[in-house]
Amino acid sequence: MSIVSLKIKAMVSTIEWRNGVVSMLDQTRLPLEVTYFECKTYQDVAKGIKELVIRGAPAIGIAAAMGVALGARDINSQDFTGFYNEMEKISKHIGATRPTAVNLFWALERMKKVAAANKEKPLSVIKEILVEESNRILIEDIEANKAMGRHGAQFIKDGNTILTHCNAGALATGGYGTALGVIRAAKEEGKEIKVYADETRPVLQGARLTAWELMEDGINVTLITDNMAGYFMKKGMINLCIVGADRIARNGDAANKIGTYSVAVLAREHGIPFYVAAPVSTIDFTIPSGEHIPIEERNPAEVSHICGKIQVAPAKVNIANPAFDVTPAEYIAAIITEKGAFKPKDIWRLQDKV
Amino acid sequence: MSIVSLKIKAMVSTIEWRNGVVSMLDQTRLPLEVTYFECKTYQDVAKGIKELVIRGAPAIGIAAAMGVALGARDINSQDFTGFYNEMEKISKHIGATRPTAVNLFWALERMKKVAAANKEKPLSVIKEILVEESNRILIEDIEANKAMGRHGAQFIKDGNTILTHCNAGALATGGYGTALGVIRAAKEEGKEIKVYADETRPVLQGARLTAWELMEDGINVTLITDNMAGYFMKKGMINLCIVGADRIARNGDAANKIGTYSVAVLAREHGIPFYVAAPVSTIDFTIPSGEHIPIEERNPAEVSHICGKIQVAPAKVNIANPAFDVTPAEYIAAIITEKGAFKPKDIWRLQDKV
Repeated sequence: MSIVSLKIKAMVSTIEWRNGVVSMLDQTRLPLEVTYFECKTYQDVAKGIKELVIRGAPAIGIAAAMGVALGARDINSQDFTGFYNEMEKISKHIGATRPTAVNLFWALERMKKVAAANKEKPLSVIKEILVEESNRILIEDIEANKAMGRHGAQFIKDGNTILTHCNAGALATGGYGTALGVIRAAKEEGKEIKVYADETRPVLQGARLTAWELMEDGINVTLITDNMAGYFMKKGMINLCIVGADRIARNGDAANKIGTYSVAVLAREHGIPFYVAAPVSTIDFTIPSGEHIPIEERNPAEVSHICGKIQVAPAKVNIANPAFDVTPAEYIAAIITEKGAFKPKDIWRLQDKV
Repeated sequence: MSIVSLKIKAMVSTIEWRNGVVSMLDQTRLPLEVTYFECKTYQDVAKGIKELVIRGAPAIGIAAAMGVALGARDINSQDFTGFYNEMEKISKHIGATRPTAVNLFWALERMKKVAAANKEKPLSVIKEILVEESNRILIEDIEANKAMGRHGAQFIKDGNTILTHCNAGALATGGYGTALGVIRAAKEEGKEIKVYADETRPVLQGARLTAWELMEDGINVTLITDNMAGYFMKKGMINLCIVGADRIARNGDAANKIGTYSVAVLAREHGIPFYVAAPVSTIDFTIPSGEHIPIEERNPAEVSHICGKIQVAPAKVNIANPAFDVTPAEYIAAIITEKGAFKPKDIWRLQDKV
């Protein structure tokens, strides 16, 4: 696989417009197969988001924007009101896929605002503007991640070992990554670093995606099961933790992949700083605390069947499958954004900068 | 599967002598298949222990004893010295399978002592005595578990929800179980209880064995991935934790399946009592603390390939796979043994009762 991987490395893109359709790298098939899921309609995009072909809060936002632009292209209305009503239907359809990542709703709002701001223009032009806006969101996301990397790399010292959970990498974003972007930036600064990647059950984004991404970039990575993190912290082998986020409340509470909260508790128990890296678009300024973040409950089959194939639990067993948990602000040393790194309690101040 | 399961329920035995061979329920194939691994030689028994056909500290002890008796039966020496030398070779072979569970070494010592104590008898009689002794260890283990259940059930209140990790059930012992024995005893006392079972990566003993055992017994069980435990504790849905142990040091530090330490840290963070249930044979009075417990590092393929079948990580990725961790005594509310429940710091007093 390594030769193939090397060949495709420069070509791999999480999501992009290609020949007039939205092409997503199919993350459900990584790391064994590099294939693309081509979205010809906004319904395809919604399906891709719901079924985790694309995942990671910033990437979901980009996908949603492209989905809206794709859907808008096919609207037949002749006047703006009719067009906008159809756009709202498309937006609602895409918005119903996953409830936790706020970037999804942020991107949908942004697309609607852009349409409204250009309502005097011909619909054919508005349709082009929407495609351009979706690409702008993609490009801004990559730039935000690079800025995040510069702001965050200060927390990583030469020789450090970093624990991360789930995948907050290039695959979760337009490119470069949030948590993994910070790690990449530290590497680019010439620091010797090692990464421990939690495999992240049930969907194994750490094993399948983070390990793959870091190996492709030549970053020293060791894969562990989620329940090993405490063991390596106790042995003094972890210097810091960095994770991404799916939604951050005004008070700095951060929702991220299930298991993140446990990592944060373990980190505090061992005196290890715990950082969250996320773009400002992940902050939900409308909610006062993490209790208001809806937690998606996913299909029990993700737990009982590995990769939809091997059954590892008795038939009909009760299963709980919350996809996210909330780490209270008090466990977070800093939230690293493209505008700088902040104490969680100060994150609300970014509202004016949006 | 449920009809088959009901039918075989009364017949299922973790390990027993059957038609002159040692028959182990093959736990690598549960819960999808109920099959038996027949050991005709002591090498078969060692293979069964090493490859997790049988696992769980007390069950490993019983298997080791039966393995010695099986091997002894085939020794051709005509005098006791020659016989005993051969027995030591057998013992060494079986002892080289898994380093952490102390019951393995305890059982091997016990078998050698019984042989030595009967050295004046004819070798044919000694061979019979060894088979009887292995059965005695099995029966004593079941009795110990029932006593443990009586001593431990006091900690479970009517309406409680208990979190457990790995499998410390009938399948990990001669029968009834240690941690699950305490849960069974509470149920038998008429208490309404619920259990959350961590799936326990990488080998999934929680998903495959604990969920299966508890469903068979009609105990309300919900399966979760290991990284969800903190989430449910934070929601106030867990009242207490009970786990087994593979080796307990003099000071009450307890080694158990990897991930147990993380559960203990999370439990303390949420003010939830954390109990360890294990027979006195699991206490290693020769070591002052948990730092002296050897931790088995197992095959990386357990992490990269699920059930030896589905590859879920990139080829050649670095993998760490420690099979156990040590929970310091300070995290443990009580150690529940067949002699009663004790504060970890008092566990050394049991030495005189062995």
